[in-house]
Amino acid sequence: MNIMRMEAFLRACATLLLLTTACLIRFNRQTSLIFPSYSRTATFRDLNALYVLVFIDIAAAGYNLIQLVLRGLLSSHLKPNMNGSYKHLAWVSFLFDQAVVYMIFAANSAGLTASLFAVTGEHHLFWMKLCNKFNRFCTQIGGALLCGYAAFFLMAMVSSLTGYGLFRHYSPKNYLVLK
Amino acid sequence: MNIMRMEAFLRACATLLLLTTACLIRFNRQTSLIFPSYSRTATFRDLNALYVLVFIDIAAAGYNLIQLVLRGLLSSHLKPNMNGSYKHLAWVSFLFDQAVVYMIFAANSAGLTASLFAVTGEHHLFWMKLCNKFNRFCTQIGGALLCGYAAFFLMAMVSSLTGYGLFRHYSPKNYLVLK
Repeated sequence: MNIMRMEAFLRACATLLLLTTACLIRFNRQTSLIFPSYSRTATFRDLNALYVLVFIDIAAAGYNLIQLVLRGLLSSHLKPNMNGSYKHLAWVSFLFDQAVVYMIFAANSAGLTASLFAVTGEHHLFWMKLCNKFNRFCTQIGGALLCGYAAFFLMAMVSSLTGYGLFRHYSPKNYLVLK
Repeated sequence: MNIMRMEAFLRACATLLLLTTACLIRFNRQTSLIFPSYSRTATFRDLNALYVLVFIDIAAAGYNLIQLVLRGLLSSHLKPNMNGSYKHLAWVSFLFDQAVVYMIFAANSAGLTASLFAVTGEHHLFWMKLCNKFNRFCTQIGGALLCGYAAFFLMAMVSSLTGYGLFRHYSPKNYLVLK
């Protein structure tokens, strides 16, 4: 039970961090003068990578909540022996956890890459830097990405725990045979 | 032994794909007219994300080769019982494999995001699209990224196998106790 409680705790923390990231990015806007006679409002819609990140973070948070509820219900009803539906649930959890961790990491990295272009520009490719015009906006995005990476580390630990919980039920001698 | 041979095969395929990706990006260059009187040569150095991707792919391929050699040497000398140095090796392999998979995925996603800006541009942010000027260059980068994602899928399978190989030696009842 010890390991299941730790997993639930990590999952709950990761959910909060994911929602924080999504809100920080979603409600971030700043209006600023770019050229002397032209002002513009920066929102998360300007970079597709941030738009995708908000959706993936909300989806991952929803998935974590479903897992928390499902495991809370099952832990009171079922003994954790590896037969029938419990085995299937463990495999499905393992595969989904893996997929969700990779999605969060990829979405964060994509957001970071896109944001770095806005910070540094790329004068070879004639892409102007914009963060000197939108200081507060860019700082908030940076904070959101930090939260996102923290959520990724927690989810990576959760996925290792799910793997441990699944694979330790298998025999060390025979290939894919339950003990 | 069956599972170790499968792991070695997947690792070897992943190594080849990683080296293919690195070479396709590293030796990609095209010279083209951007403005009527201004020609430019596009290389992988223009986008930092691609530069990082080449290094990470070569490092991951090197890591895989070390693992292949190490496991080839050990499999003839040691029985796979989980005592002493074999246990430490299994844990180190598990942690490194996890890290390498995430690095490959993040580097590929960062490269993809950066390349998408070159394909579509971002007229909100005054970033011009460049792939209409460098057709062959961009196609080759696209192929390299496909190879990179294939390598990631193979490595994700390898890391699941390492996790399976490690965790199935643990007791299903007691927390982190070997059988």
